[in-house]
Amino acid sequence: MAGETVITVIGNLTADPELRYTQNGLPVANFTIASTPRNFDRASGEWKDGDALFLRASVWREFAEHVASSLTKGSRVIASGRLRQRSYQDREGNQRTSIELEIDEIGPSLRYATAQVTRAAGGGSAPRSQQPAAEEQWATPQGSSDAWGAPGQYGDDTPF
Amino acid sequence: MAGETVITVIGNLTADPELRYTQNGLPVANFTIASTPRNFDRASGEWKDGDALFLRASVWREFAEHVASSLTKGSRVIASGRLRQRSYQDREGNQRTSIELEIDEIGPSLRYATAQVTRAAGGGSAPRSQQPAAEEQWATPQGSSDAWGAPGQYGDDTPF
Amino acid sequence: MAGETVITVIGNLTADPELRYTQNGLPVANFTIASTPRNFDRASGEWKDGDALFLRASVWREFAEHVASSLTKGSRVIASGRLRQRSYQDREGNQRTSIELEIDEIGPSLRYATAQVTRAAGGGSAPRSQQPAAEEQWATPQGSSDAWGAPGQYGDDTPF
Amino acid sequence: MAGETVITVIGNLTADPELRYTQNGLPVANFTIASTPRNFDRASGEWKDGDALFLRASVWREFAEHVASSLTKGSRVIASGRLRQRSYQDREGNQRTSIELEIDEIGPSLRYATAQVTRAAGGGSAPRSQQPAAEEQWATPQGSSDAWGAPGQYGDDTPF
Repeated sequence: MAGETVITVIGNLTADPELRYTQNGLPVANFTIASTPRNFDRASGEWKDGDALFLRASVWREFAEHVASSLTKGSRVIASGRLRQRSYQDREGNQRTSIELEIDEIGPSLRYATAQVTRAAGGGSAPRSQQPAAEEQWATPQGSSDAWGAPGQYGDDTPF
Repeated sequence: MAGETVITVIGNLTADPELRYTQNGLPVANFTIASTPRNFDRASGEWKDGDALFLRASVWREFAEHVASSLTKGSRVIASGRLRQRSYQDREGNQRTSIELEIDEIGPSLRYATAQVTRAAGGGSAPRSQQPAAEEQWATPQGSSDAWGAPGQYGDDTPF
Repeated sequence: MAGETVITVIGNLTADPELRYTQNGLPVANFTIASTPRNFDRASGEWKDGDALFLRASVWREFAEHVASSLTKGSRVIASGRLRQRSYQDREGNQRTSIELEIDEIGPSLRYATAQVTRAAGGGSAPRSQQPAAEEQWATPQGSSDAWGAPGQYGDDTPF
Repeated sequence: MAGETVITVIGNLTADPELRYTQNGLPVANFTIASTPRNFDRASGEWKDGDALFLRASVWREFAEHVASSLTKGSRVIASGRLRQRSYQDREGNQRTSIELEIDEIGPSLRYATAQVTRAAGGGSAPRSQQPAAEEQWATPQGSSDAWGAPGQYGDDTPF
């Protein structure tokens, strides 16, 4: 691909990653990264928290399983990926869009933590594909225009 | 500031920038950048357009006036700034959030164009502030939770 | 390409771009961007200039001609591209490396300037290639391991 | 700081991080990240490795100790930081410059690995400073114009 909008985000997971599988058995993990800037307040001479940015993120394949088994709620991460815009219908039937992050690379930040790293079995020394399975379709639940884009709309009746 | 989520976007303006002034006379320009990635289709051996990302952007002060007088609908730009999340109420009274770009730097791309550049009168050779006027409040129209964040909600009765 | 190290640089040209042509007639423009950070000095309560970063940059094809005809010494630009490492021999015969920027997109910053933009003749509305001519070889002067990478080593006897 | 050139690098450590302490007892870790792009070769229909970018990096304070105890030669990392240019004299007395990365955030990539993360003792939940100790001077070995910037010039007689 070319001309995509890439971005690096540093923040904390708002909850444990949710790991699911497509009908074809493809793993995908979804989670939200909260990134909080800090502003220097000249009046008080102190740093203060600014408004957080909450960015919904997804990661695919074995990579998704690595994320789900390594990161938890509160984990500080550094992530890079591509911004994607999704269209979906809300409950009132209005067309909505959301901006989400398709992750290319993510790791736990070592700024305030240490990590014991284990190379995944089966390698990755010569990955055949670094591209996410964008072409693979989700099993969409009935009545949903986009099972993927709308946070929180996965029902108990979803097939995964 | 520190810890903000910075991003570079390359794309085209979907319309002419809208230049307005706050009650305090501070200029601000708003516009949308459409960024369209291209995917290489191995089957056909051709590049095809992917889904566009539409990002709402704002720029402040004299900088806003420079943008409004230099860029028009269709202009290809390179822009960098910080992602901001805004909360607003939609017409049904639901709380919504939108992600927008507060621009730190923008220019017309020279990839398919040339530009004749004129330094702004009054200088900028020694700018006293490179920070946008985040602290300056908008004059908010009645009944709006956020005059800034919700695209398209500026009415004829807005005070600017 | 995938996995390249992309970067956005904001700074000023240290000199006019140097426009040259390869033996095959391919245009290339070279120039240096100086990017100067500013540090807030708490003691004095003032911003002070930090150490500048000088980054050698190149741009190819018609794009190079647009740059050469639009930007001059001192122009403030926003540029994005990919970091490249080049090896070359210095005058003492030592192997040296330099890091340079292969530009994908550049424009004059509108922060302190306005620009009158003219779309290039011949279009670009449907560019066939957004990739620089990495595959096209330079006409290398005798005795040089890399006519491209070493700043300032273009002699009068170079064939372009 | 403002106006610094920030960058995200994804690659592999070429060796274990070297952990040292300044005369004031401040930890610093140095290492090199090799980032190798991959190019799609249309002729063969395969991805091939491009030229690697080798970027020298440094990280400070407790953060340095976390890096040194978590990452090893070969570790795939995602890192973000600021590009810095250093001047130094080579052995022939010539003035040289090198570009290095002052790391703000780094973590082991989970693309091909899992990680067991442990929050550092003493917290970091409310960090007082996210800025590296740029102001703190190195204990410079005799005869060196810059003990920091020139890779490989640390002798056995260095005081740390």
